[in-house]
Amino acid sequence: MSTHTTDPRAELKRQAAIEAADMVTEGMVVGLGSGSTSAFMIEELGRRWAEGLRFCAIPTSERSAEQARSHGIRLVTFATHPQIDIDIDGADEVERGSLNLIKGLGGALFREKIVAAASRKFVVVVDDSKLVDRLGARVPVPVEVASFGWTSTARQLEGLGARVTQRLDRSGNVFVTDGGNMILDCHFGEIADSVELQRRLDGIVGVIETGLFIGRTSEVIVATVDGLQRLRVA
Amino acid sequence: MSTHTTDPRAELKRQAAIEAADMVTEGMVVGLGSGSTSAFMIEELGRRWAEGLRFCAIPTSERSAEQARSHGIRLVTFATHPQIDIDIDGADEVERGSLNLIKGLGGALFREKIVAAASRKFVVVVDDSKLVDRLGARVPVPVEVASFGWTSTARQLEGLGARVTQRLDRSGNVFVTDGGNMILDCHFGEIADSVELQRRLDGIVGVIETGLFIGRTSEVIVATVDGLQRLRVA
Repeated sequence: MSTHTTDPRAELKRQAAIEAADMVTEGMVVGLGSGSTSAFMIEELGRRWAEGLRFCAIPTSERSAEQARSHGIRLVTFATHPQIDIDIDGADEVERGSLNLIKGLGGALFREKIVAAASRKFVVVVDDSKLVDRLGARVPVPVEVASFGWTSTARQLEGLGARVTQRLDRSGNVFVTDGGNMILDCHFGEIADSVELQRRLDGIVGVIETGLFIGRTSEVIVATVDGLQRLRVA
Repeated sequence: MSTHTTDPRAELKRQAAIEAADMVTEGMVVGLGSGSTSAFMIEELGRRWAEGLRFCAIPTSERSAEQARSHGIRLVTFATHPQIDIDIDGADEVERGSLNLIKGLGGALFREKIVAAASRKFVVVVDDSKLVDRLGARVPVPVEVASFGWTSTARQLEGLGARVTQRLDRSGNVFVTDGGNMILDCHFGEIADSVELQRRLDGIVGVIETGLFIGRTSEVIVATVDGLQRLRVA
């Protein structure tokens, strides 16, 4: 039932995702991340569900929900399960040391962050190409903003030093999030103080949420060519 | 063309709204607030438009847009007019001294705040029953939150000391904002440090925006039985 792959990097991510899925035990409430690494994790959870493990899951995107459903995994909502035991998700950048993240290049950042915030344990799975010394080095910070007044919001983001680009979908139309908002990709370059940046972004009216995940990570499982590495905040 | 009223409090608010509308001059970009006081202000602007004054306006709600349209007032958007010269709006509470506000009992808080944030001058019109020594004394702080995960968000709001009630519409269904979100009315009682509270609320994932307007007010025009009073931050 598993998808084997000949792409060595994908195979590494799959190994890391399986390691993370192993942390799920009987009766847990599990947050299901989004993206390619999370797909490996959900596949593994599906395999264990078929073996008889029982848990319930809150997905962070429609795609993850569909995949989980296809395995028969029981999906629940916050209304009945406000406290999540473990949330497993990927990331676009992981900062060495702090384990702070940039997420949301896939567009599901708001739901991913809500689920992470409601979880006792937040486990991130990446391959080692995602590790950086400073966040912002390679990827922009995605910022979800209200469509109403977005040009004004964009100017305020530029005022914080970002080069701002409006995210488009594959057809070249404005990308619309699950919540009906748009994403502005904010290119800051290396971010010296991500805590302070998060605070300033939060203070901008029109900003719904940002892809900075500060102080939320419990553990990172890193796939490297030499095997898996597990990182925790010192 | 004007609506005269026999309710003495409404007549006072109308006088204050006219005073605020007088601050609009030829060629300005004007933010149009929402609610009963703003309706008086838009009526007065409509009267001046009919006399030949020309300006353009960005409304904060569909209702204000309709009213402005009925007077023939030219409506524009942020896309072409990112900088607003003056925004005129009501408030639910005004704190003496700081002129900080609670707004959004009408449900349009997010748009109202975006427009206020984009304005060079933000003028608030109230009658003196809205003046308080401490915000939160009489009204809850409306907090717009994502429907996804709202129970988890509500628990975090309670963690800040609020009694939280979910806003319903007149039919008893969950109230839905223009942005498709819900409103949690957060009863804090008197708020000792509204700047710190705003910072904490901003930091909660799932919170889209709050009805606290901190440090945004340029001037308050207060209708009292003894006439109009104009307040500015000392």
